[in-house]
Amino acid sequence: MAAWNKLAIIAGGGELPVLLAAHLAAQGADFWIARIAHYADPALDSYPGATFNIGEMGGRIAAMKAAGCDAVALIGIVRRPDLAQVKFDEYGLTLLPRLADAARQGDDALLRVLVGSLEEAGLSVIGAEAAFEGLLATAGAYGAHAPDERALRDIAKAARVADALNAWDVGQAIVVCDGLVLAVEAQEGTDAMLARTAMLAEEVRGSQAARRGVLLKRPKPNQERRVDLPTIGVRTIEGAARAGLAGVAIEAGGALIARREDVIARADALGVFVYGFTAADLA
Amino acid sequence: MAAWNKLAIIAGGGELPVLLAAHLAAQGADFWIARIAHYADPALDSYPGATFNIGEMGGRIAAMKAAGCDAVALIGIVRRPDLAQVKFDEYGLTLLPRLADAARQGDDALLRVLVGSLEEAGLSVIGAEAAFEGLLATAGAYGAHAPDERALRDIAKAARVADALNAWDVGQAIVVCDGLVLAVEAQEGTDAMLARTAMLAEEVRGSQAARRGVLLKRPKPNQERRVDLPTIGVRTIEGAARAGLAGVAIEAGGALIARREDVIARADALGVFVYGFTAADLA
Repeated sequence: MAAWNKLAIIAGGGELPVLLAAHLAAQGADFWIARIAHYADPALDSYPGATFNIGEMGGRIAAMKAAGCDAVALIGIVRRPDLAQVKFDEYGLTLLPRLADAARQGDDALLRVLVGSLEEAGLSVIGAEAAFEGLLATAGAYGAHAPDERALRDIAKAARVADALNAWDVGQAIVVCDGLVLAVEAQEGTDAMLARTAMLAEEVRGSQAARRGVLLKRPKPNQERRVDLPTIGVRTIEGAARAGLAGVAIEAGGALIARREDVIARADALGVFVYGFTAADLA
Repeated sequence: MAAWNKLAIIAGGGELPVLLAAHLAAQGADFWIARIAHYADPALDSYPGATFNIGEMGGRIAAMKAAGCDAVALIGIVRRPDLAQVKFDEYGLTLLPRLADAARQGDDALLRVLVGSLEEAGLSVIGAEAAFEGLLATAGAYGAHAPDERALRDIAKAARVADALNAWDVGQAIVVCDGLVLAVEAQEGTDAMLARTAMLAEEVRGSQAARRGVLLKRPKPNQERRVDLPTIGVRTIEGAARAGLAGVAIEAGGALIARREDVIARADALGVFVYGFTAADLA
């Protein structure tokens, strides 16, 4: 079914690369992991692969091809590096002017250069969800709880504001409660944003006894959707619950969910919804 | 020179109301302070005036008029209240439907209803800077330091992104470094935003040894500029300095500066710029 024979995984931090590898291994699929030094989880060391510094771009491509890979998925967390500090290999150095130029335009432009370099090398770049369908957000309510009218209004507003923000490559997450924007994520990450939301006065955010407001994550309007989709996991649910929010909304087909069953169980237990919104919810 | 005879000040929290009162007292001007309970600084108790709960809207207006005031300035910090918890007086209750409706549209809509209620009562609503010119941000570099080309590029980008955000009533402040949006303020306030910027990796934000990036504050595009202008003070400068930023940019004519001389002295000592940008800087 897959349009490739052997998948390479360029693995950053966090559990998504580990989940993807475990899924592929369970299926008996042939894959090879290019671990990014200082980011990739040590659990990945047990699979076929090798570790490269972030700037070893030529070495990494050569190794993936030598391993027989014809497709590659980029997955996991990598903080934007200071290009002046990165040790590039010879091929990486040839990309440096394009990388430096893209860096000024934002994270998405930077990723496009990386994707382009892989494609130029003859590798087909795929989204991780193409290799692991269960990762991708589907439409509708996931667990026992669903958004009410009030939460659906917050979802619609949050989606529009997120779209306006994301057009500027600001971030992918936002908290809205009763139409008021409580928090916007930029470089600090969703967990930090939820933690400060929990510190706002309950007048604006609701409480665990009377939940109000939503965390929404959606991709940037022109985003290269094969890489860097917004992600939620159990920690996201717990952070939203601590902030007194009613639930978490992600764009159906536009977000990854780590450990979907665990996410649903935790959301059910905490009394928050997880909802995959579609264009119909924003009308 | 002033277009009013006696000014009323509706005083929220922070030092701006105290500075305004001290300035007016030093000038021998006739003024009267409507202190907002739980917000106004106790230092204001020594001036003519009275204290009102936030919902005593009829009582406050009657008292300002009984004191002979013909104009009013709203100044100082007030967190958005939960309208369901506010104890309104009779007149306040008549405003409640409009307030509740406005609250869903954002802070600015809420303030417009308040301003409208004062004007309907025959009070002329003025900006605090009309009574204290030294509060308003002027154009250009303020102290010993000025933005370089790199910082001016960040200012131009930050101003455009802030404009896009503020059209959604998100906030008034943003941090940009080398074109990358590091932080966006919503309900948490500028100090909290700068504190988390200081916790980001130095790769994206610069350091005290090699400063990079700017904090920018500007009003919302359609904002009622007589109330709620963005404000900076010494703490803003110190927060920006701790975050490794090169400086602070405010819109000339669109921001208030508390203790301007102190702000300049602190910025000079810490090696950061304070810059009043104009449309010419964004071209």
